[in-house]
Amino acid sequence: MNQKDLLRPVADAASLSAPLDNFNTADAVEFLNTLSLSRAADTLAALPLPRAVKMLEQPELNRGGDLVAAMPVARAAALLGLMADDRATDIVHELDEDERARLIPLLSPEARKAIQQLLSYPAHTAGALMTTEFVSVPSDWTVGRTLQHIREVERTRETVYAIYVLDPHTRALVQVVTMRRLITGLPEEPILDVAQVNPPVTVDVQLDQEEVAQLIRRHDLLAIPVVDAQHHVLGIVTVDDILDALIEESTEDVHKFGGMEALEKPYMQIGFFEMLRKRAGWLSVLFLGEMLTASAMQHYEDELARAVVLTLFIPLIMSSGGNSGSQATSLLIRSLALRELRLRDWWKVALREVPTGITLGAILGVLAIIRIVSWQLLGLHDYGEHWQLLALTIGAALVGIVTFGSLSGSMLPFILKRLGFDPASASAPFVATLVDVTGLVIYFSIAAMILRGTLL
Amino acid sequence: MNQKDLLRPVADAASLSAPLDNFNTADAVEFLNTLSLSRAADTLAALPLPRAVKMLEQPELNRGGDLVAAMPVARAAALLGLMADDRATDIVHELDEDERARLIPLLSPEARKAIQQLLSYPAHTAGALMTTEFVSVPSDWTVGRTLQHIREVERTRETVYAIYVLDPHTRALVQVVTMRRLITGLPEEPILDVAQVNPPVTVDVQLDQEEVAQLIRRHDLLAIPVVDAQHHVLGIVTVDDILDALIEESTEDVHKFGGMEALEKPYMQIGFFEMLRKRAGWLSVLFLGEMLTASAMQHYEDELARAVVLTLFIPLIMSSGGNSGSQATSLLIRSLALRELRLRDWWKVALREVPTGITLGAILGVLAIIRIVSWQLLGLHDYGEHWQLLALTIGAALVGIVTFGSLSGSMLPFILKRLGFDPASASAPFVATLVDVTGLVIYFSIAAMILRGTLL
Repeated sequence: MNQKDLLRPVADAASLSAPLDNFNTADAVEFLNTLSLSRAADTLAALPLPRAVKMLEQPELNRGGDLVAAMPVARAAALLGLMADDRATDIVHELDEDERARLIPLLSPEARKAIQQLLSYPAHTAGALMTTEFVSVPSDWTVGRTLQHIREVERTRETVYAIYVLDPHTRALVQVVTMRRLITGLPEEPILDVAQVNPPVTVDVQLDQEEVAQLIRRHDLLAIPVVDAQHHVLGIVTVDDILDALIEESTEDVHKFGGMEALEKPYMQIGFFEMLRKRAGWLSVLFLGEMLTASAMQHYEDELARAVVLTLFIPLIMSSGGNSGSQATSLLIRSLALRELRLRDWWKVALREVPTGITLGAILGVLAIIRIVSWQLLGLHDYGEHWQLLALTIGAALVGIVTFGSLSGSMLPFILKRLGFDPASASAPFVATLVDVTGLVIYFSIAAMILRGTLL
Repeated sequence: MNQKDLLRPVADAASLSAPLDNFNTADAVEFLNTLSLSRAADTLAALPLPRAVKMLEQPELNRGGDLVAAMPVARAAALLGLMADDRATDIVHELDEDERARLIPLLSPEARKAIQQLLSYPAHTAGALMTTEFVSVPSDWTVGRTLQHIREVERTRETVYAIYVLDPHTRALVQVVTMRRLITGLPEEPILDVAQVNPPVTVDVQLDQEEVAQLIRRHDLLAIPVVDAQHHVLGIVTVDDILDALIEESTEDVHKFGGMEALEKPYMQIGFFEMLRKRAGWLSVLFLGEMLTASAMQHYEDELARAVVLTLFIPLIMSSGGNSGSQATSLLIRSLALRELRLRDWWKVALREVPTGITLGAILGVLAIIRIVSWQLLGLHDYGEHWQLLALTIGAALVGIVTFGSLSGSMLPFILKRLGFDPASASAPFVATLVDVTGLVIYFSIAAMILRGTLL
């Protein structure tokens, strides 16, 4: 099939593409997301190539891989070849081996090389995020020659606002020139005269996207160059890719904090069994951990039999420990992610959480005592003859458990980081489980102290 | 004090600013954050004005307001006057009334007007985020004249990469021209010839920053104009401000999901009582809600007295409901935030969560049965003569509770949204509390059904 055939819309094209005529790209993508897969693929195939390319490049487009796989293979290859190479790589990532084997040989040698190179970098790294479509010029060029070059290549570059100045011999990165400085220069000036003064901020191809985001943000950049050991520019990561990556990371962090594996697709697009796998793993691990509560309770079975009244408050007391732990963990996960705190600051945090936990526990303890006393005095429930001691037990247990919850919830992200894990892997259910088992032991120990000789 | 005095560094300046000589702005900011307030203020005052301005403009700089307040007032005013007006407004926001009254009269009339205008917009809106330092030109200008204008004003504009083309008479926004298209135009071409084809995407001054971020991301913009009803451009929100806002939102969302009010400052900078206030409120509300578990348990006190063995599994069963609820909530919070799902899709989610919950509950139920049977048969614990029925009770209760947890956890964000709240206000502890009370009722009802006539 030659280029002309590819550019000719498929039969029925007019009726398929008509609903999209009045939409901008973002709205058209949203419309496409609502269609069935085959209809969406037909519609995408019916659109003029530049329009279809633009839509495929939007990260909001769902089922990108499936759509490309469902299209005539020659048209799919034409679209991939015209896409920004980083976005095309994202699509190829979603294809299975067979589909890749059919499509990739149809690409131009340059597109094929770029995509295969980008495919080789692990997900969530600078390499996986970068595009190879940037502007670079030798350092012996003038401002005028650079501007002329940019005018010629503008349409095929993801950004032209950062220009990478390379050593003319080694092709190593020498400096970065911003477009705003470039246009203030005189045409005959050497390009290096309008370059920044500071050495360029660069990243390694393996750097995690979260660190790349921090650097882009810290230095207020529109793009950051990814370099190898010889300082050759392999690609650039642009701020709009970082924006997408940050939103993706937020989603992952919330999922993980909720106590499950992060989903990589929208909720409605996950298959039933994939969804089960993402949730059952952690749920079972937490369940096995929580079985220790049954063991702890078994250990105190005699006490429970003698003082059933103690069981009434078990859920209340345990949940308070979990809740205060969850608060502390959420605080520290973000402080560590934003590098407000370092690993070595753990003791400063511990020194703050202990008095905070004691005070929070005391507040809840007073609430609990008010509840028990007023229920007893109003005749709403009879907690037995030792109800004053029971109230004291519950109050004291709350101080102990909330303090322990705050302390362990705040230390958990540090411990995970120390062990080489992402502090964001600490989840609310995980903290709750941790605190539940210890909470029971604290509760029964305090009960044994206060109630020995009376209820126990 | 005249301008020259302000530009002259304070005494001892060399020794104060020396450590920063080899740092870039971001590193210098980090260094400043580690100093005591008075030393940091002295250092900032000792730096050359442009350097100090750049550092004050970094969102990573802590204690911005305190630093400005601690400086000689004339120097503070000089710094504020030179800062980007949106960042200067952020600093003024942190000052108390007295400090504002001392500082603002010293500003130039333009800076004063811009800052007072920006101060009037509520936090987290496009208005609060925008800068008034953008490039606009009348629509009857040429490409060449526009470029010349940009060269002249470049240093005082936050971005020059989006140029806003206004009606020469009404000054209403007509079109947006990107710098990359501008430089490809011929100098004598009318500016509108290189403008975009689509109508410009604009936002209202009141729009929430999260929506602004979605629009910037959807349309891959570097800046978005904020307009009034007559389509006058009031300011622009740039992508680097959005990046900062998104990171701030992620932090807030994690704090809220952890069950507390979001902190607005880094962990170590919050005072003890402010920290208590942020945590004690929700903790107490959850505690009062959780008190219903004590009421539920009181209701079943007779059953508990007859079958103490039932209490052994209460923490295990309740936490499983909370954990599955927390998973479902984390999924739906993000799906709603990313607009993958709409309010009207709630029933599709309910239809997925019920079978998912049943399956997850069955998996945990089998684990529990295995535990009880093996402990019994291995002689590790004696669950009494009706241990088979007990195992069945625990297994069945887990199916019921995990299904209820998944369903209510997934519906909670929809309900909050329906009631006009942010779905991200749903927290893991809140879901856990919700599920705990109902979980107890489910547990005891199933126990009553299965164990009637034997244990109960």
